Amino acid sequence: MSSLLVDNIGELVTNGAGEGPLGIRRDAAVLVEEGRVVWVGPSAYAPAADRRLDAGGAAVLPGFVDSHAHLVFAGDRAAEFAARMAGEPYTGGGIRTTVGATRAATDDELRATVRRLRGEALRQGTTTMEIKSGYGLTVADEARSLRIAAESSTETTFLGAHVVPAEYADRPDDYVGLVCGPMLAAAAPYAKWVDVFCERGAFDVDHARAILACGQAAGLGVRIHANQLGPGGGVRLGVELDAASVDHCTHLSDADVDALAGTALSDGSGTRTVATLLPGAEFSTRSPYPDARRLLDAGVTVALATDCNPGSSYTSSMAFCVALAVREMRMTPAEAVWAATAGGARALRRDDIGVLTPGARADLVVLDAPSYLHLAYRPGVPLIRQVMRNGVTP
Amino acid sequence: MSSLLVDNIGELVTNGAGEGPLGIRRDAAVLVEEGRVVWVGPSAYAPAADRRLDAGGAAVLPGFVDSHAHLVFAGDRAAEFAARMAGEPYTGGGIRTTVGATRAATDDELRATVRRLRGEALRQGTTTMEIKSGYGLTVADEARSLRIAAESSTETTFLGAHVVPAEYADRPDDYVGLVCGPMLAAAAPYAKWVDVFCERGAFDVDHARAILACGQAAGLGVRIHANQLGPGGGVRLGVELDAASVDHCTHLSDADVDALAGTALSDGSGTRTVATLLPGAEFSTRSPYPDARRLLDAGVTVALATDCNPGSSYTSSMAFCVALAVREMRMTPAEAVWAATAGGARALRRDDIGVLTPGARADLVVLDAPSYLHLAYRPGVPLIRQVMRNGVTP
Ligand SMILES: [Zn+2]
Ligand SMILES: [Zn+2]
Repeated sequence: MSSLLVDNIGELVTNGAGEGPLGIRRDAAVLVEEGRVVWVGPSAYAPAADRRLDAGGAAVLPGFVDSHAHLVFAGDRAAEFAARMAGEPYTGGGIRTTVGATRAATDDELRATVRRLRGEALRQGTTTMEIKSGYGLTVADEARSLRIAAESSTETTFLGAHVVPAEYADRPDDYVGLVCGPMLAAAAPYAKWVDVFCERGAFDVDHARAILACGQAAGLGVRIHANQLGPGGGVRLGVELDAASVDHCTHLSDADVDALAGTALSDGSGTRTVATLLPGAEFSTRSPYPDARRLLDAGVTVALATDCNPGSSYTSSMAFCVALAVREMRMTPAEAVWAATAGGARALRRDDIGVLTPGARADLVVLDAPSYLHLAYRPGVPLIRQVMRNGVTP
Repeated sequence: MSSLLVDNIGELVTNGAGEGPLGIRRDAAVLVEEGRVVWVGPSAYAPAADRRLDAGGAAVLPGFVDSHAHLVFAGDRAAEFAARMAGEPYTGGGIRTTVGATRAATDDELRATVRRLRGEALRQGTTTMEIKSGYGLTVADEARSLRIAAESSTETTFLGAHVVPAEYADRPDDYVGLVCGPMLAAAAPYAKWVDVFCERGAFDVDHARAILACGQAAGLGVRIHANQLGPGGGVRLGVELDAASVDHCTHLSDADVDALAGTALSDGSGTRTVATLLPGAEFSTRSPYPDARRLLDAGVTVALATDCNPGSSYTSSMAFCVALAVREMRMTPAEAVWAATAGGARALRRDDIGVLTPGARADLVVLDAPSYLHLAYRPGVPLIRQVMRNGVTP
C-alpha cells in the first residue's frame, strides 16, 4: 500500500473543520492512501509517506464538482453565438441543430468530444463532472449517449426530455410517452439521474412530473432544469419530488424560495434540495444573472456548475463560474468556492467529494496562487497548477 | 538559415489581406525564417521547409499584444478585492499599499514577479506585453522598476506619475518637479514611453501635460491613463500631445470622442491615437464598462489590454478581455480579436506585430479550437495550444 503526502500547503480548503466557512487550515498537509484522504493536519507534524508532493506554500482545494454539463453532442454553434452577441436574428435551429448533428455522428465522434471536454475540464481542476444526454432524443441515440457518458463519469443523467424533437412537434404527449417508456428503459442501465427541461417551449410541469416520476420509479435520482427563462412551477416540482438539485433558478417567486428553504436539513447543514446556479449561461446569452444572495440569505444550499454545452454556455471552467458568481451574483469568494466544490457534491448527494477530510476521496487541486481568493481575484487566468483525482495525478 | 512551416491551419487570422476585417484565410500555411513571416498562402501550395508544425486544422492568430500592464510590484491585495466585492469598506491604502511593498522588495523579488507574470501571459498567448513602472515613486525605485521591466520587454513605460506618494501628499507640485527632473532622467534610459494617471485624486491635466511634455522632450512616446473614474480632460490632452494611446476611456464626452476621431489617418486605416479599453478593470471593480460601440462607430481605433495589476485588474488573460469585450461592450468577436492583436500593436505604434503577413514577426498562437470565435464562445477556457514568439516555440 503506497502512501502519498501532500505537504507545505499554505492554505488548505477542507470544507470541513477549520477556519471560516471553508474550514481553512494553514501550513497543512494531507496524507493519501488508496485514493482516499486518511489524515489532515499541520505540515510540521505530518506522518511519513512513501511519496511526497510539495505544494510549495500554495493553496490546495478540493477538486471542483461540476454537477451540470451536457457533453455528448456533435457540431459547433459558434456562428449562432456570434449572431446572438451582435443582436442579430439567427435562423439556426438552436438545440435542434445539435440534435441533428448528434444523431448523424458516429459513436467514436461522440466519444472523442466527451473525452476532449472531460479532459479539458480535468486540467482545469474539475475532478467530478456530471454528464447529461439530451441531444439524441431517440431511444437508440439517448441510450448510446448515456453509454458513452458512462465511460467518462459515474454521474450520468438521462435528459431525453431536453426538448420535443421536430418529428414530435405536433404530438408532445406521444413524445412524453416515448421518454417514459422505451427510452427510459434503454437509458436507465447507464444513468444515475433523470432530468427534464421544464420551461415554456420545452416541457410543462405536468409532463415534467410524469417523466421525473417514471425515472424515479426506475431507480433514478431526480434533478430538473427550472425557472431559467421565466417564472414557472419547475422549482416547486423539484422540491415536491425530492430533487437533489433544481438548476438555473434565474426567475424565482417567493413561493419558490420558500419551497427550497423548506427542505432544510435538521442538522442545520443547509437544504436537501440544492439550487444550482449556472452563470456561464447568463454570460453567454447576455441574460440577467440569478439572485444568489436571495437564496443564500434564505438558507438555501447553492451550487455552481458550468452548464457546459454548445448552445448557451460553452465553458468548462469552474474557476470562471466562481469569478462570475463573485462579480455578478455578489457571492463572496468563500461562498463561491464552497458552491463549486462542496455545493456541487451536495447537488449530487455525495459526501465523499467536495471536501478534504479523512475518508474523502483524494480529489484535489494545487493552485498557482497562495489563496482560494485568487480564483475570483485573477479572473480568466489558468490557476490550476496540479490536479489529483483518486489520489493519482494525471 | 533554418525555416519552419506552420501548415494545415484551418482558419488563419492575418489582420491583413483576406476575408473580412480579420483578413482570414482558410486551409493556410505560414512560412517562417529568422523569426519573421516570409510567406503566407494555401497549405496545399506551401514551399518546403526544414521543419514543420502541423496546426491540425485549428485556428492560428497573431500573438496577443497586451499594451497596458503593471507588472513591477510586490505584495498582494486579495483581501482588498474580497472586501470590495462584498461592498465592505476597506481601510487598506490602495495603490500606496503596493508602493510600500514594492519599495521594501529586493530586486530579485521584483524580477521574480515580473518573470512569473510575463511567463503566465506568454503561456496564454501574449507575445508582446507592455510593462509600466509606477509602484516605486522614488528616483531609485522607478529606475530599478524600469531596469527590471526592460529585462522582459522592449515596451517599457515610465509611470512615475501613477499617484502622488504619501510623503508628497501636501506638495504635489514638488512631486511633479521630481518626476520631470531627476526621476525622468534616471528612468529614461530604460523606458520607451511616458504615462500619467490623469484623474481626480491622481494628477490633473496641467500636471499631466507638464510631465508628458518632459517625457516627450526626453525622447519618450506618450500614453495616458484617462477618463477612467470620471469625466475630465485626459483624453483631449492625449490627443493634443499625439499620444499613441489613451487608456480606459470609460467616461467620455462628445468632445473626447470627436478629438479621438479627429486623429484619423489619411489612409483610412483608423486613428493615430488609439483608445485602449481595459474591461478587466471594470470586471474586478464592478464598474460600468466603457462604450466601445460609440468609439468604433465614430471611427476610433480601439485596442484591448489587461491592465494587469494587483489592485484593480489582476488578470493576465487577453482571451478573458476578448470575452468581456463581446459580452459587456458589444464588440463583435472579430472586432475584439482585432483589438487584442492589431489594435494593441497600433497602441504601441508597431507594424511588425499583431499581423501575420510577410515581413511581420513570427509571433503567433495555435488555438485548441477551429475558429477565433471560440475565444468569446468558450469564456474562461484555456484555448491556447501553442505559442510562437520570434519564430520560436518556448
Ligand atoms: Zn443545462
Ligand atoms: Zn493601468
